Amino acid sequence: MDDNKNVEEKVSLITRNLQEILGEDRLRPILEERDLVIYWGTATTGKPHVAYFVPMSKIADFLKAGSEVTILFADLHAYLDNMKAPWELLELRTQYYEHVIKAMLESIGVPIEKLKFVRGTDYQLSRKYTLDVYKLSSVVTQHDAKKAGAEVVKQVEHPLLSGLLYPGLQALDEEYLKVDAQFGGIDQRKIFTFAEKYLPALGYAKRIHLMNPMVPGLTGGKMSSSEEESKIDLLDKKEDVKKKLKRAFCEPGNVENNGVLSFVKHVLFPLHGEFVVMRDEKWGGSKTYIEYDELEKDFSDQSVHPGDLKSSVEIALNKLLDPIRKKFQTPEMQKLTRAAYPEPTKQQKGASKGSTAENDEIVPSRLDIRVGRIVSVERHPDADSLYVEKVDLGEAQPRTVVSGEGEKRKVEPLNPPGGSAPGERVFVEGYENGTADDELKPKKKVFEKLQVDFKISDDCTAQWQQKNFMTKLGTITCKSLKGGNIS
Amino acid sequence: MDDNKNVEEKVSLITRNLQEILGEDRLRPILEERDLVIYWGTATTGKPHVAYFVPMSKIADFLKAGSEVTILFADLHAYLDNMKAPWELLELRTQYYEHVIKAMLESIGVPIEKLKFVRGTDYQLSRKYTLDVYKLSSVVTQHDAKKAGAEVVKQVEHPLLSGLLYPGLQALDEEYLKVDAQFGGIDQRKIFTFAEKYLPALGYAKRIHLMNPMVPGLTGGKMSSSEEESKIDLLDKKEDVKKKLKRAFCEPGNVENNGVLSFVKHVLFPLHGEFVVMRDEKWGGSKTYIEYDELEKDFSDQSVHPGDLKSSVEIALNKLLDPIRKKFQTPEMQKLTRAAYPEPTKQQKGASKGSTAENDEIVPSRLDIRVGRIVSVERHPDADSLYVEKVDLGEAQPRTVVSGEGEKRKVEPLNPPGGSAPGERVFVEGYENGTADDELKPKKKVFEKLQVDFKISDDCTAQWQQKNFMTKLGTITCKSLKGGNIS
Repeated sequence: MDDNKNVEEKVSLITRNLQEILGEDRLRPILEERDLVIYWGTATTGKPHVAYFVPMSKIADFLKAGSEVTILFADLHAYLDNMKAPWELLELRTQYYEHVIKAMLESIGVPIEKLKFVRGTDYQLSRKYTLDVYKLSSVVTQHDAKKAGAEVVKQVEHPLLSGLLYPGLQALDEEYLKVDAQFGGIDQRKIFTFAEKYLPALGYAKRIHLMNPMVPGLTGGKMSSSEEESKIDLLDKKEDVKKKLKRAFCEPGNVENNGVLSFVKHVLFPLHGEFVVMRDEKWGGSKTYIEYDELEKDFSDQSVHPGDLKSSVEIALNKLLDPIRKKFQTPEMQKLTRAAYPEPTKQQKGASKGSTAENDEIVPSRLDIRVGRIVSVERHPDADSLYVEKVDLGEAQPRTVVSGEGEKRKVEPLNPPGGSAPGERVFVEGYENGTADDELKPKKKVFEKLQVDFKISDDCTAQWQQKNFMTKLGTITCKSLKGGNIS
Repeated sequence: MDDNKNVEEKVSLITRNLQEILGEDRLRPILEERDLVIYWGTATTGKPHVAYFVPMSKIADFLKAGSEVTILFADLHAYLDNMKAPWELLELRTQYYEHVIKAMLESIGVPIEKLKFVRGTDYQLSRKYTLDVYKLSSVVTQHDAKKAGAEVVKQVEHPLLSGLLYPGLQALDEEYLKVDAQFGGIDQRKIFTFAEKYLPALGYAKRIHLMNPMVPGLTGGKMSSSEEESKIDLLDKKEDVKKKLKRAFCEPGNVENNGVLSFVKHVLFPLHGEFVVMRDEKWGGSKTYIEYDELEKDFSDQSVHPGDLKSSVEIALNKLLDPIRKKFQTPEMQKLTRAAYPEPTKQQKGASKGSTAENDEIVPSRLDIRVGRIVSVERHPDADSLYVEKVDLGEAQPRTVVSGEGEKRKVEPLNPPGGSAPGERVFVEGYENGTADDELKPKKKVFEKLQVDFKISDDCTAQWQQKNFMTKLGTITCKSLKGGNIS
C-alpha cells in the first residue's frame, strides 16, 4: 500500500460511504499530525458471516489510509448475553473471530500490520475501569442511559439493568483503547452522542464517531449474527452459497432493501473499484461497471436482471471466500471451528444442565418465530381461501388465520407491523427474554401445545393466552378474521 | 462476658428490640452449631454522632451473644456520593469512623475481639466482585432495581444510574463478607428482600436480615449523619450537650416521635438494664425504672416531665461520651479529627476548585432548607398576623407567607407535606441534587437573590420560578394566601 497518501486522500478513504460523521472537524487536524487511531467493537456472541464484509470493507479503507485499527472483541458482553455459555467456549469463539477476521482482511488484500485485537476482559474488569464505570453511573441519569441504548438494546417489557450499563462501558472503551475515533453502524448513534456528552464529565476527551449506514443482509434482514438460518457462512461450500443466494430477496427493478445490490455497493465496489455483471450474449453480454450508481440505474430499469446480478455476485463472493475456506482447511482451524461451534445437540446437553425446569415449561419464548416474506400466493379454485408460502421459516410456524370450516373456511395471512424485515423475531408480550429451543422435534411438540391457546382477538391481533404476538416494531395482526384460529 | 450463653439466650440477645427479622427460622440451627456472623454497613460520608449509639447498642447485643460482627465502611459509596471529596480525605474519615466506633463500643463496655472492620474498596473493585455485579445486572430488571432502592435512594426527578446499582452491591456484600446475616434499619427492607431474591440467582445463599426500627434522632429528625445542625457530636463538650438537649423536641405526655424517650429505650435500657430519672424531692424524688414501658407510661401520664427526663438522659449520655472524649484528647486523635473534618472554609476552598462556575450560579439547591417544628405561635395584638418560631432552622429560611401591607397584612406559616419530620430537606423541583453552601454569610446573600423569585402559586403551593418547593413526601403549601410572598 501507498503510505504516502496525502491528508485529503486519507480523509476521503476514511469517510467514503459513511452515513454520518460526528466531530469531522477534528479529523483533518489529527491527520495533518499523524495517522488516525480507530476502534470497532463486536460481541463474540454468534458466528461471523458474509455480512461482516461490510464493516471489514470500511476497516480496509481505514487501514489503507494508514490508520491504526483496534478490533474490540466484547467477550464480557457476550458472556453476559448468555451466561449459560462457559468462558472456555467464549474464548474459543474469540479465537475463531480473530482468525476469520484476519482471513477476511487478507482476502480483501489489505495490510494488517496496523490492525490490533483486544478482548474486553483484558481491561474491563480492572480496578481503574470499574471505578470509572461507577463514577460514570454517578453522573449519568437513568433516563439518559435508557435513551442511549434505545436503538441497540432489545426493547422489552421488563428490561434488564445491564442494558443501562452498556452505553457507559462503550463510552469508556474509547478512552481505555486510546483511540481518536469509534466506528460503528448508524444504529449506534445514540450511544455515540452519549459518549460525547459524558466522557468529558470524567475528564476524558470526546471522540470522533464514524457511522456506516444500516446495510441489508445479502440474503435478507438486517446484519446481525443472531439470525442464522439463511446467512451465508464464511466457510460455506460453493453449492450452499449458490442455494442461499438463489433464495435471497432481489425483486426485479426494486433497488430498496435489496441486500444483493447493497453487497455490491458496500463491499465489492469499495474493494475492486468495479463490478462485472456476467450476462448471456442474447441479453446484451457482460458489462463492467465502474460506478455503483450506474449499476443501480440499470437494475432499476430492469436492463440488469436479478438472476444475472446474483450469479455475478456469486462469482465475486466465492473469490473472496476461497482464501478463507482454504485457511480453515488446516486440521488446527477445523478443530477450532468444531470446538467453538459444537453441534447443536452436544451444546444443548451442556447448556440444559442448569435449566431443566425452564426447559420443561411450555412458554411461547421457546419458539423461534420469525417474520417471513410471502413468495407466492395462490387462490384455491373452489373456495376464497389463500394458500401462502413464506421463505426462511422453520417447519413449526404460525402463518395463517383460519376461520370457519368447509365452504365457510376463510384463510388470511398474519401481518407483521409495517417496516418489518424478514428474519425479525416474533415474541409474545412478556416472554421476550427466553431462549428458543434448539432441536426441531421437541419444538414441534411445544408448538402444538402452545397452539391450543393461539387466537385472533376482537381487534384482529394475534394472541397467545390473550397476550399479543409482537415484534419490536409492534403487534402481529390479520385483516379481518376476529376469533380465528392460527395455524 | 459470659461465653457460655445457651442458644435461647443468644437468640434473645440478637433479636431483642428488632422490628422485623427475615429468615428467623435459620437462626437457631446456625446457633446450635456455631456463633452467628453478622455485618452492618455504613457509608463514611458524614461524621458519626450520638444517633450511632442506636445501631451500636444492637451491635453490642450481637457481640454479647458471641457473634462475629463485621462493620463495612462503604467508602466507595461515600466517594461516589460526592466525587469532589478526594480519596485521601475519605481515607482519613474512614480512620475516624473506625476509632470512634471502637471508642463507642468500649464505652458501652462490650468486648471487641470478634469485631472486624472492612472497607468497601478492599474488595468491591476486584475482578471477581465486578464480574458478579455485571452478572447480577444481567438477571435483575430495571424495575426491581428501582423498587429495591425506593426507600433509601433519594427519589428525585432525574435519578442517577448509580442508584440502581447500589442494591446489587449491598446484596453481593453479604456473599463477599461471608456472613450469615445483615443488620440494618427497617428502611433497608426492600434492599434486603431484593438480596434474598437475587443472590440465589448467582448461586449464592440468601442471608438472614435483622432490622432495627427507625428511631427518631435524640434531638429531632431521622437518624442520618447528613443533617448536621442540631446533632450531638460524640466529641461535643458537656455544655453543648446540655444546650442541644434543651432544644430537643420532647412534648409533655407525648411519647410519639420523641427522640429523648427513644434514646432511653434503644440505647440506655439495653446497655444498663435500667434507667434512673433524677427528680427533685418536691416532684416525688428520683425513680429507677427496670422496664422501659413503665417509664413510657409515667411520661405519658406526665408524672415524668420533659425537663427531668432530659437532665437524666444528659447525665447518662455524658457517662457514655466521657471515655470517647478522653480517647480523642491525644494529639494523634486531635490531628486525625482536624484532618478528617477540616474547617468548612478550608474545605470549601479545596472543593470549589473544580466547580467555581457551579458555585457562582444562583440555584435554589445552594440553600439548605429544612422542615422545622413550630414551638410557639403568638398572635400579634393589632393585626391577625402570626409570628411563628421554628426550631433547628438556620438564619436564612423561608418560613412564612406574607400578603398585603399595613392593615391588610396577613401572615401564614408554610406547611410541609403530612408525615414530614423536622430536619427533612426541602428542595425545589429539578434542583434535588446540588450541594448546599457551607458558609452562612454568602448563603444569606444567595437566599436574598433567590427570594426575589419565591411566590405562592394559585393553588397555594410555595414556588421558586414556578417550580414547586418539595420534600420527598410532597409539596410545601400554605393555607390560603395565593400570590403571597415568602419570607
